[in-house]
Amino acid sequence: MRKLWGGAFSEGSDELVERFGQSIETDLRFWEEDVLGSIAHATMLGRTGIVSEADSALLADGLGRILREGPDGLPRDAEDVHTAVEARLSELVGEVAGKLHTARSRNDQVATDARLYLRKRYDELAADVKALQRVLLDLARTHREATMPGYTHQQRAQPYTLGFHLMASFWAFQRHGNRLDHARALANYSPLGAAAVAGTGFPIDRVATAEALGFAGPMPNALDATSDRSWALDGLHVCALIMLELSRMCQELVLWSGNEFGFVSLSDRVTTGSSIMPQKRNPDMAELIRGRAARAVGNYVTLATTMKGLPLGYNRDTQDDKPCLFESLDLTRDSMRLTALMLETATWRTDAMRRATKRDFSTATDLADFLAAQGTPFRTAHETVGKIARACRERGIGLEDLNVATLREIDPTVPEEALSVLRPTQSALSRNSQGGPGRRAMAAQIKRARALLARKGFRDPV
Amino acid sequence: MRKLWGGAFSEGSDELVERFGQSIETDLRFWEEDVLGSIAHATMLGRTGIVSEADSALLADGLGRILREGPDGLPRDAEDVHTAVEARLSELVGEVAGKLHTARSRNDQVATDARLYLRKRYDELAADVKALQRVLLDLARTHREATMPGYTHQQRAQPYTLGFHLMASFWAFQRHGNRLDHARALANYSPLGAAAVAGTGFPIDRVATAEALGFAGPMPNALDATSDRSWALDGLHVCALIMLELSRMCQELVLWSGNEFGFVSLSDRVTTGSSIMPQKRNPDMAELIRGRAARAVGNYVTLATTMKGLPLGYNRDTQDDKPCLFESLDLTRDSMRLTALMLETATWRTDAMRRATKRDFSTATDLADFLAAQGTPFRTAHETVGKIARACRERGIGLEDLNVATLREIDPTVPEEALSVLRPTQSALSRNSQGGPGRRAMAAQIKRARALLARKGFRDPV
Amino acid sequence: MRKLWGGAFSEGSDELVERFGQSIETDLRFWEEDVLGSIAHATMLGRTGIVSEADSALLADGLGRILREGPDGLPRDAEDVHTAVEARLSELVGEVAGKLHTARSRNDQVATDARLYLRKRYDELAADVKALQRVLLDLARTHREATMPGYTHQQRAQPYTLGFHLMASFWAFQRHGNRLDHARALANYSPLGAAAVAGTGFPIDRVATAEALGFAGPMPNALDATSDRSWALDGLHVCALIMLELSRMCQELVLWSGNEFGFVSLSDRVTTGSSIMPQKRNPDMAELIRGRAARAVGNYVTLATTMKGLPLGYNRDTQDDKPCLFESLDLTRDSMRLTALMLETATWRTDAMRRATKRDFSTATDLADFLAAQGTPFRTAHETVGKIARACRERGIGLEDLNVATLREIDPTVPEEALSVLRPTQSALSRNSQGGPGRRAMAAQIKRARALLARKGFRDPV
Amino acid sequence: MRKLWGGAFSEGSDELVERFGQSIETDLRFWEEDVLGSIAHATMLGRTGIVSEADSALLADGLGRILREGPDGLPRDAEDVHTAVEARLSELVGEVAGKLHTARSRNDQVATDARLYLRKRYDELAADVKALQRVLLDLARTHREATMPGYTHQQRAQPYTLGFHLMASFWAFQRHGNRLDHARALANYSPLGAAAVAGTGFPIDRVATAEALGFAGPMPNALDATSDRSWALDGLHVCALIMLELSRMCQELVLWSGNEFGFVSLSDRVTTGSSIMPQKRNPDMAELIRGRAARAVGNYVTLATTMKGLPLGYNRDTQDDKPCLFESLDLTRDSMRLTALMLETATWRTDAMRRATKRDFSTATDLADFLAAQGTPFRTAHETVGKIARACRERGIGLEDLNVATLREIDPTVPEEALSVLRPTQSALSRNSQGGPGRRAMAAQIKRARALLARKGFRDPV
Repeated sequence: MRKLWGGAFSEGSDELVERFGQSIETDLRFWEEDVLGSIAHATMLGRTGIVSEADSALLADGLGRILREGPDGLPRDAEDVHTAVEARLSELVGEVAGKLHTARSRNDQVATDARLYLRKRYDELAADVKALQRVLLDLARTHREATMPGYTHQQRAQPYTLGFHLMASFWAFQRHGNRLDHARALANYSPLGAAAVAGTGFPIDRVATAEALGFAGPMPNALDATSDRSWALDGLHVCALIMLELSRMCQELVLWSGNEFGFVSLSDRVTTGSSIMPQKRNPDMAELIRGRAARAVGNYVTLATTMKGLPLGYNRDTQDDKPCLFESLDLTRDSMRLTALMLETATWRTDAMRRATKRDFSTATDLADFLAAQGTPFRTAHETVGKIARACRERGIGLEDLNVATLREIDPTVPEEALSVLRPTQSALSRNSQGGPGRRAMAAQIKRARALLARKGFRDPV
Repeated sequence: MRKLWGGAFSEGSDELVERFGQSIETDLRFWEEDVLGSIAHATMLGRTGIVSEADSALLADGLGRILREGPDGLPRDAEDVHTAVEARLSELVGEVAGKLHTARSRNDQVATDARLYLRKRYDELAADVKALQRVLLDLARTHREATMPGYTHQQRAQPYTLGFHLMASFWAFQRHGNRLDHARALANYSPLGAAAVAGTGFPIDRVATAEALGFAGPMPNALDATSDRSWALDGLHVCALIMLELSRMCQELVLWSGNEFGFVSLSDRVTTGSSIMPQKRNPDMAELIRGRAARAVGNYVTLATTMKGLPLGYNRDTQDDKPCLFESLDLTRDSMRLTALMLETATWRTDAMRRATKRDFSTATDLADFLAAQGTPFRTAHETVGKIARACRERGIGLEDLNVATLREIDPTVPEEALSVLRPTQSALSRNSQGGPGRRAMAAQIKRARALLARKGFRDPV
Repeated sequence: MRKLWGGAFSEGSDELVERFGQSIETDLRFWEEDVLGSIAHATMLGRTGIVSEADSALLADGLGRILREGPDGLPRDAEDVHTAVEARLSELVGEVAGKLHTARSRNDQVATDARLYLRKRYDELAADVKALQRVLLDLARTHREATMPGYTHQQRAQPYTLGFHLMASFWAFQRHGNRLDHARALANYSPLGAAAVAGTGFPIDRVATAEALGFAGPMPNALDATSDRSWALDGLHVCALIMLELSRMCQELVLWSGNEFGFVSLSDRVTTGSSIMPQKRNPDMAELIRGRAARAVGNYVTLATTMKGLPLGYNRDTQDDKPCLFESLDLTRDSMRLTALMLETATWRTDAMRRATKRDFSTATDLADFLAAQGTPFRTAHETVGKIARACRERGIGLEDLNVATLREIDPTVPEEALSVLRPTQSALSRNSQGGPGRRAMAAQIKRARALLARKGFRDPV
Repeated sequence: MRKLWGGAFSEGSDELVERFGQSIETDLRFWEEDVLGSIAHATMLGRTGIVSEADSALLADGLGRILREGPDGLPRDAEDVHTAVEARLSELVGEVAGKLHTARSRNDQVATDARLYLRKRYDELAADVKALQRVLLDLARTHREATMPGYTHQQRAQPYTLGFHLMASFWAFQRHGNRLDHARALANYSPLGAAAVAGTGFPIDRVATAEALGFAGPMPNALDATSDRSWALDGLHVCALIMLELSRMCQELVLWSGNEFGFVSLSDRVTTGSSIMPQKRNPDMAELIRGRAARAVGNYVTLATTMKGLPLGYNRDTQDDKPCLFESLDLTRDSMRLTALMLETATWRTDAMRRATKRDFSTATDLADFLAAQGTPFRTAHETVGKIARACRERGIGLEDLNVATLREIDPTVPEEALSVLRPTQSALSRNSQGGPGRRAMAAQIKRARALLARKGFRDPV
């Protein structure tokens, strides 16, 4: 092969083939699931009489020992984890190890391992979602009366509260948790026993192995069981959604911690500073999470593009479902934890937030609503508010700076009770439509959130 | 502006701004939902006393008339559909039309419209999934004993049946249907009443409007209600999965209808031919569906990338959630229908399939299993099968061509009952592990599929 | 087909097939190129004697007339533009029209049309790049001494000037222009004469048609000529890069026009306001461009995913190269023009920028450099600066507020000339390393930019 | 932090922060470039008098020693490679090491390193392109008269030759090589001296360092130099295009090596077999390359999505440009080498190819062309061919089976010379339009290809 790409390259072509094809590094992630799957299979082989009870027991014992030895006991020079486990089993129990592969193939085995592993990771992610929700809820309760500007088009639009803002993310994660539950349920069916592509003539008991492994049941078609990768795309989708959610929160943390907003100071533990610029604090973790949301999207594309146009039956292409899925799972877990850490250790500059609600006319809508509620036709109400706002601007004051005298001067038809809705805090805290930042509305929202948080799982998205 | 890009371009900059910003073409898709949402809102305004009962009735009547007039009654020069409806309403009921916008904003309105519209489209897609499943199931029953080669690595691996192959897709679509159900349920919450970003001080009744519109309930946080687009990404994800599934089926149709396989002849209705090549039939629809699966992936990327790093609160960027979502919905609907049409009108060349199972040694695994089941150690069984296969090859025959005499000649230790598993059809039809192509296994599988198909919805993925 | 998806759907299956397969809407974009290609082909057929000179002239005349009639003269019920042109040609010149298709196929024809059309669009984009660069350069010259904060990690890091900032984008677009040039050159080879897939036995002259159409030459392999779509992906790549660039500029415009930064006021022509909030100005165009950059990425994914794993030879899948390419071309053109318009009509709040450079210690690096340049070891310089910064902070002043007395008080070892680098403007305008914001450096940079802008094309990326 | 996500997780939050932020694993790839960049910088600091000649020499000596020690000499507990090199330099030369960082920042340093490293990798890829082209060209020459079916819509359309088919890929790679050249040229400008974001006040000589490092020159704007990542996206684009090309070739290898086509047998070195199915050969390498093309697309999406909407100036998000870029570079290199290996070691079943050109009426077009060339109007020619083809079909023969008698019987108006174009091989070898499979056309094509292959680089795409 040397002539092919010249003497400059030290790697031989066969080493290249081997390296390109190996999956052991990735597979070792689910070594435990591989062994557990084999134990269930070996036990079933004995119960159905496909192998003798004695052989079945030998196999199960050997596998149990591998489980206790941990992954370090497995040979590393194997092509994949299945080969590694079987090699170790041979060392432990001798020739009978060969019987483990009866009525099974690596095709159904790897699909089973991957689903078991994913199930475990979903449970971990679900716990991380709960933990993040708890941080959000605690902060929201603390800051439920801390007024801050609400934005549309990234321009100040209407005052609300920090607590209200944080609760928006609480509910987003309630949905993500619900998605995790659903993806887990959909993935939780057993491919074991599908064999290479079309089942086996051995009288295996797929219900038994499915039950032993905690699956909801066996998959109903062997070809589908080994061809399907939609479960992996579901996982990549939920990871992408969570990462996108975090990217939005992190974008806000980056902006809010900047000099211009000054709404929050991130803790030293999640930032880097400058030895010579005392106030400089780079929100590195927030930037990295924001950036890495892109990877979660890229990983989705990778697997989706891999699957496009692939005929049914096992294709080697699908070996690569795992690296991108595992990467997204790790990334999502780390990013949720880091976001929780950032939020929990941040110092919230509620004074700066409150100051920022002044002089931006962001209570104009509330004033218009107030007038309309009093019976003024909408169009007239809008004209009146426009007039008042312009008059304030000419005087160099904000709406909240109006007093009875000035208001009378500008427009004597406006009742002085209107002044109350012009104060940002009063405006925010009195918007009590369901789901609003008003005192009563927030109390109800928080109560509902606490109840859902206390429940196991995320059955109710709302 | 002319100087900016020269006289060659006829469009003025303000026309460009207008064209770039308009969404009326897309919005008209959900004109009906917009009007229905407004009727619910108007009715609620009356019931809560925010507007008088008389005004409420006037508004509802006018809107009802718009509903009857249909979209052609709406002015086309409006920026968006909300503006168009309000303009028409003004013509019909006069100044009171202005009251419709009380306690509402275009931000919550468009989010409500889009969810209502999506719900309708999910129902349509669910019906299309059922229709496609029915075609698959009917074909599978007809061809449940039609032997064909099963492939791994796109190489013949083990014989199974056409019916078994088609059932793999049945189950894939059962999962996709389940995903549609879940995505629908998750999207079916009402943003109406969230107003621009943070609710309203008017005593609106969000539960009432949610109920009137068939939503499961109002969304619990106003900011979340207007910021969230994860429901659209859920829709894009399910569409992408369905399109990827179809791309796999269409890839098989393209290959199978080619000269080399010859497993199927697609009908004239879905192919184009050649006036001079009598046998030429281009599988155009299958190619287009295969290709357009890529668009479904691209649309997912578009919205995911749009949302990355976007602060909460309405941002104009999200206006573009709809073009990509609607395109994917249309594409998925059309592609499911066309695939059903292709399958239903195809002529299946089961003779060619059966011929293709010969001489490819694809029953070797069955023979090894047979020997192992008889107690031969696995390694020995493999050696024996290898020897027999090589001997056949030297003789220029396939495994299925062996008879008692030849088998005895090659290896007298192999019992002659082994010959039965060497026949592809017998091999396929006797693999009765659950989910296999065997007669009993397929009967059970089909029975389960019929039961699920008859049920409303897709609650059970299996 | 009605039974397939029920009576609710009005569209017949054959209409669906037709609609799904048609490309006429997209194709009409390059009707002119289609006719020009046919004229070149017809002329060559005459010159080579494949058809008679008389027939050749008849064909060319008819085609010339179609060119003058414009696209409205073409029948709209044709499947594609080639069919439409031939139908019209038949009406105009009668049966001889059929000879036009000699030694040609729709496969090489559409590839030729698309390349010709793309070439035209590249030229248009190149002009738009130049126009945008001119706006950037003009603004940069105007504001080359307007100090503003420079950011790293979106935190204020070091003062520079608005002119310097804008020039960064100038150079980015110089590279994009260079990419357009390269993509154009690479696409500018003629597929005409490749026929369906493998050339023709007719003695055609591909060099002649290539020359007539302004191509650099014919493509050297007929299969490659009809299979290749990398030229379209090149186009999608350049469009994606330009859109990403614009998304970054637009993100800055959104932030800078917000209340917190206040660095720029966008003109009424590109924003929408509020009738009741006098200062509210939504940067809609900037948000839409930022958002639509995602579409350019999605379009790249669409075509890349389409092409993956597609065997050579014409496949119907590739019909869809055009919708995504054309959409990206339109989007990129519009977005460049709108960005130029936004920049050109904006009011730059240089006072606010200058104010923002105060009290943020962003000249600390300059001070450290100053001390290091004087021979102080780097570590010591850093310590000194850190001490001074902390002392300022305790006094509630910025570095720029230091005077000789205070400086002496804090650290008598620091020479008073150091004070000059602590003033943001002086700091920025004295950083004269090549490519820096200093007066001399900027003069050189602007001079180079003017020279490049005046040149035709973008041969030099720098 | 334990309370945050419970006792089950062993990793402390600060370890998580560290792990999430580190880039040393990736950075070590370009340790050599980092040291070379530092040597150029240190030398320049001495020449310009910014540091003393003696210090400059000390720094350069120390760095030279690090170069000789190799990467194993660097400490592994550093956050990034710059820190690691400086730490080692301190050990070697003491305190003077601190002067190396004068007038430089990690922002310009990492941009410089990455460009130098990418340049090296481009050169390696270019060599791999040449090697692959050589294999293609050698095979094409060998098989330039081996007839095989040409496909459109994956249906047999017209006979051509294996050599002609392989040459299509030769030209595709000529373009990819040209793209590599262009991307290299565009990336080959020096960011060194841009410092953190806005240059420096030190009198550095950026032209000198650029020259020393082999760059075409310094980048003209410091902000652009540290903000730009379009060079990385160029790299990802070219890698994606190459991988897509290879995926198409590999898809053909998978199909052609299958039982149905049987056009090629891949060597044992790149396939896996079955101990019991003697003919089974899984094209694993081809499947993996086909699948991993998806990763190259995913990587493009990752970086594109990362960059979208990112303000100028260094952002930590861009740290992640390297993992996806390096992965694509490795993947593309390995995949080109493996494809070359597969092609070179394959056994081409030209007999099977030739057999496959029979009885598929794929010379019908040639017959129509023959008649048209003889003066028969196109429509009449088509009718005649259609009639002959139908008559053959009824007789169960192919067009190539016609003899003078049968032809006369079917249509006496067709001259018997027509028979020659009905033979697939004669048909293919006589299609001599430029770029066709005919003998003369292929000789010219191969001659041109040899000339280009012998040239350095890929200046001419054709």
